[in-house]
Formats: sequence, structure tokens, C-alpha cells
Amino acid sequence: MENKIRIGIIGYGNLGRGVEIAIKQQQDMELIAIFSRRGSEGITSTDPLVVREPIDQVNEYIDKIDIMILCGGSARDLPQQTPHFTQWFNTVDSFDNHSNIPDHYAKVDQVAKDYKKVSIISAGWDPGLFSLQRVYSEAFLTNGETYTFWGKGLSQGHSDAVRRVKGVLDGVQYTIPSEEAMQEARQGLTVHLTSGDRHRRQCFIVAERGADKNQIIKDIITMPGYFADYETQVNFIDQETLKREHSSMPHGGKVIRSGKTGENNNQLYEFSLNLGSNPEFTSSILVATARAAFKMSQEKQSGCFTMLDIPPKYYSTKTNSDLRKDDL
Amino acid sequence: MENKIRIGIIGYGNLGRGVEIAIKQQQDMELIAIFSRRGSEGITSTDPLVVREPIDQVNEYIDKIDIMILCGGSARDLPQQTPHFTQWFNTVDSFDNHSNIPDHYAKVDQVAKDYKKVSIISAGWDPGLFSLQRVYSEAFLTNGETYTFWGKGLSQGHSDAVRRVKGVLDGVQYTIPSEEAMQEARQGLTVHLTSGDRHRRQCFIVAERGADKNQIIKDIITMPGYFADYETQVNFIDQETLKREHSSMPHGGKVIRSGKTGENNNQLYEFSLNLGSNPEFTSSILVATARAAFKMSQEKQSGCFTMLDIPPKYYSTKTNSDLRKDDL
Repeated sequence: MENKIRIGIIGYGNLGRGVEIAIKQQQDMELIAIFSRRGSEGITSTDPLVVREPIDQVNEYIDKIDIMILCGGSARDLPQQTPHFTQWFNTVDSFDNHSNIPDHYAKVDQVAKDYKKVSIISAGWDPGLFSLQRVYSEAFLTNGETYTFWGKGLSQGHSDAVRRVKGVLDGVQYTIPSEEAMQEARQGLTVHLTSGDRHRRQCFIVAERGADKNQIIKDIITMPGYFADYETQVNFIDQETLKREHSSMPHGGKVIRSGKTGENNNQLYEFSLNLGSNPEFTSSILVATARAAFKMSQEKQSGCFTMLDIPPKYYSTKTNSDLRKDDL
Repeated sequence: MENKIRIGIIGYGNLGRGVEIAIKQQQDMELIAIFSRRGSEGITSTDPLVVREPIDQVNEYIDKIDIMILCGGSARDLPQQTPHFTQWFNTVDSFDNHSNIPDHYAKVDQVAKDYKKVSIISAGWDPGLFSLQRVYSEAFLTNGETYTFWGKGLSQGHSDAVRRVKGVLDGVQYTIPSEEAMQEARQGLTVHLTSGDRHRRQCFIVAERGADKNQIIKDIITMPGYFADYETQVNFIDQETLKREHSSMPHGGKVIRSGKTGENNNQLYEFSLNLGSNPEFTSSILVATARAAFKMSQEKQSGCFTMLDIPPKYYSTKTNSDLRKDDL
């Protein structure tokens, strides 16, 4: 295929590696370069064709990359990086700090408009694909209730939190949705379910030698913001078991909207993801979103966008007429 | 709310009545008139404000209706009606004859471009919402298999078919998806499932007095195109039971895509509808699609579109910034 979409990656953690892998599945894309703060030493890519550069050499690639996929973290990297790199590149990020999205949007939109670039922020599954399902389901079932459930999945933020507890050597935390609450949501029961009603939390902890396990349990289950409002189970295991059984990064969740139409007809809309690898699925969405950003830039659009702004066909490699023939 | 979107309905069967009901749930819309071939006599609407007109008076409403929702059938009405009425109105239809969509699109697109109108065709859940899920899931999971399951639900086409069998007074047919096939699809087993592997069919028949029931069963289960390739069960009941237990129009289905990313990580995407009333849910989607058509016409777009062309935000009553705040 001629004129492949030329992709760059900034940031080379789980997400950046996932994007590198996902690009290999796309016939219409090629990976031009990976940029990392650590320079080429931090990049384990085995593809000899990919140039690995320290992040400060990025602007030497202005005419060589169509879409830059930003794979940094939402806490410290993306709030600076997305506005910064959108001066020079069309960009895609997975900014997932829900409450700060309006701020992030405003900053990126200003730069993207000034420099006539397309930037699509907050791509991924939540925010992202789950947001799409919330918007569709609310528009198509005006009278109803929407619930989002997360898990069963490994939560990075909660795993970090348990690892900071005194006496904890290592550990992971799984968020587990309540089957009972999901059944209630499906039946459209209008009880107001809190996140704590909808989920429980399960921790697997490697304790330091001689640590007070009862104190660890107490410190975890009473931790405000993270565990205090949830039913929490703490299990102690050894480091080898942790590595063997808890190294993958599964996740998933559901968006359920239960609505009513007409006299009293129940209508149930349910979307579900069951992911063997959370970062690889997010990466796959980022790559398809880069395709959309490329099409929009070809149309001379500019500004900041989210997945709510994008026609579904833009993510696809198919022509519009093939989509109508195959998928409608 | 000022400047409500002014809606007209052409065709007053189950779908037209569903649209009338769905508009009552929308704060930004008002129903201006219902048009039927049978004139006002065919229209049972109890709303005294709604003008009911014979269909030939439709062009007296050119400046009074923003979006005309076409609620005729896909076999005989819409192939003529959508191109015809798009001369005068922005239109929305639920044309669902999958293999004829490219033809229908081409005809409507020509008229819509000539007369500078927006027409959104094939809105509904399949084609429509299921098509969106197929396109998203295929774009986000490049390597995988997509399966669509229908049911459990009442199939109008198959019910019509059993009612044409000799000796059958009345009857309905339910399409029932195979749980086993759904499990296989979720596991990404790459067996090629036919529609007959994925579904079975269940008929409830009221036989004429003295009819040969064995012959009826044989005529149904061997009927090519409809039943021959499916496991089919035929049950005989009386007219009263049919009316009491089989008058509602439930339906639903699933779109399942099972994909792989990276080394060998399974990723499962599953969308499911469980509908108490099939026509009322389709109607609800038509009404939200009319909102999208209105926004697109306000932007001076013209031509024929499908749901694959439409940004999700266009279906919503919320502002873009509220959507980013609430749904991302």
C-alpha cells in the first residue's frame, strides 16, 4: 500500500509498547520513530527499522510523521505534552483523568486551532468507547438509567496505593463488579447505586518479613478514597506466586442502560468488555483513532476532538461504500 | 424551549405509532403532523394537536416541518417514498433490506444533493446500532471475528411466512440464538458458524379446524430460505392463547467480536440488546436520528447518510461541553 500513515510514538511504557504492537496489525500504517525521555536505551523495540530517539529530537520529524501518538501518563505527562507537541504534530492521547478533561480539552483546542492541527484526546475505553455507549444509550433511550461497572480488572491506581502501605513489599488490587448490582441495573431498578455498592476490591499482598499482617489489613481496608467505602478482601501470597499469577493486566467492564418506552416496555442496552490486556486494548483504540485523526487532517479540519465528535467510519480502513455493503 | 425541531411522520403502522410516542419523551421536538395513505381515518392518535392528513397533502407542509420521519415498510414503501419525499424534506428512514442498502443509498443521495436536503437512511438497531458496533469492534480489534446473533425475538418476516402455510389460521415465529454458539463466539473459536448454527426457530401456530397438523409441520420445517436450514420447533395453540401470550413484539440480539492483540491476549467486545418492544426501540432511534439530521441541515450539509457517518454527539440533546463533562 502506498502512502501509509506515518506514526510516531512518544513515551514507551506499557501503552507505548502496545501501540507499537498494534501498528504491526495495520496494513495502512507504518511506525517511523519512538521517542522516550530515556533515549534509545530505554526502548526495547526489536524492530531494526524503527528509529529510537530521545524526546528532545522530536521536532526534527515534523515532516516525517503524520500522527504522533502520546503514550505518557495522565497525571504528569499528558497535561504538558499534548498541548506542547500539538504545535508540530497532529496528536492522539488517552488522557483519562475524567474530571480534568474539560480543562485539558480547552488547552489543547487552543494550540490545535492556532497551529492548524488535529488533536484527539481521551481515546481509549473509559473514557472513550464507554463514553460512546453512554451517549448512544442515553440518546436512544431517553427515559432510563445508565450504570458503568468496571472489572474484573487490575487497577493500577489501587495497586500503587496498597504498595505504599507500611509492611507491604509488593501487591496488586482487582476491582470486581457486583453481580447483584448488575442484575439490579438490568432490571432498571431505580435505586441509586454508589460505586461502593457496585464494586468490591480484592488485594493480593506480599508482606515484608515480620510485618504485622493485621495492621496491613487494617491500613488497607480503612484507606479513604480507595478502600474505605468498599467491601475489601486482603490475601497474603508470596512473591513468586504474585509474579506467576498476577503479572497480566486484565480488565473490562460494562455500560448498562435500562430504559422504558411507550406504555411500559422495558428496553435493555448492555455493552461489555472482557480484556486479556488492558494496555493493549487501549493501544488498539489509539491506533484506530490515529487513522481518524489522519482522515480529519486530510480534510483540513483543525482543533481538539474526542471520540464523541468522530463519525464511526473514520476509524475503519474500509471505503464508505464497502462499509455500507458489509456492515450495515 | 423555543425553536423546537418540527417533526412529521409518514406512515402509521407500529413504527409510526412508536415515533409518535417517542417524540413525547423529547423536550426539543414537536410533532406537527401525521400522514397516512388512509387519511385521518387510519390514524388513531389521541393527541388533538396533531394534524392528520392524507399522504397527498404532504407538500403543503414544506415550510412547517424540519424533519420527516418515514415509517413505511422496506419492501414496498421506502424504495419509492424516501427518494420522493427528500425532494421537499430532510428525511430519516429505517430501510432494513441489508443487501439493497447500496442501491437505496445511491438513489436517495442523488435527490438529497440535487435538492440540498439531508437524508439519513437505515437508522434502527440492525441495520443501525448493530452496524456501529460492528464497525467500532472491527476497527478496535483488527485481528478477530465478529458474529451477530438475533433474538430471542419475534420475526415479522418468518411469522408472515408461517401464516401463508396451508391450514394455518394464525401464528408467530420466534428466532432464538444458540447459547452454545454464543459461547463459541466469545471464546473466539474460528469455526465458521452459519446463521443456522447460530439460531433456532420456534413457531406457535393456530391451525384451521380439521387441518392436517403433520402436513403443516412438514411444510414449515422444509420451507427453503426460511426454515429448512434451521432447527425448527412447531407448537399448536388456540387463538386465545396466541393473542394473550404472543401479542407483544420483543426482540434483541448480540454483536460479539473476539479478537487477539500482542502475543496472545484475548480481547472480548460484546454488545447486547434485550427489547420489550422492537418497534418502539427502532422508533426511539429514528427520533434521535432526526435530531442528528436537523443539526446536519443547520450546518448546510446535504446528501444521504447512514449512522456510520454521524458523530455520536449529534444524537444528543446535550451541548458538546456538557457531553465532555458528563459522559467522557
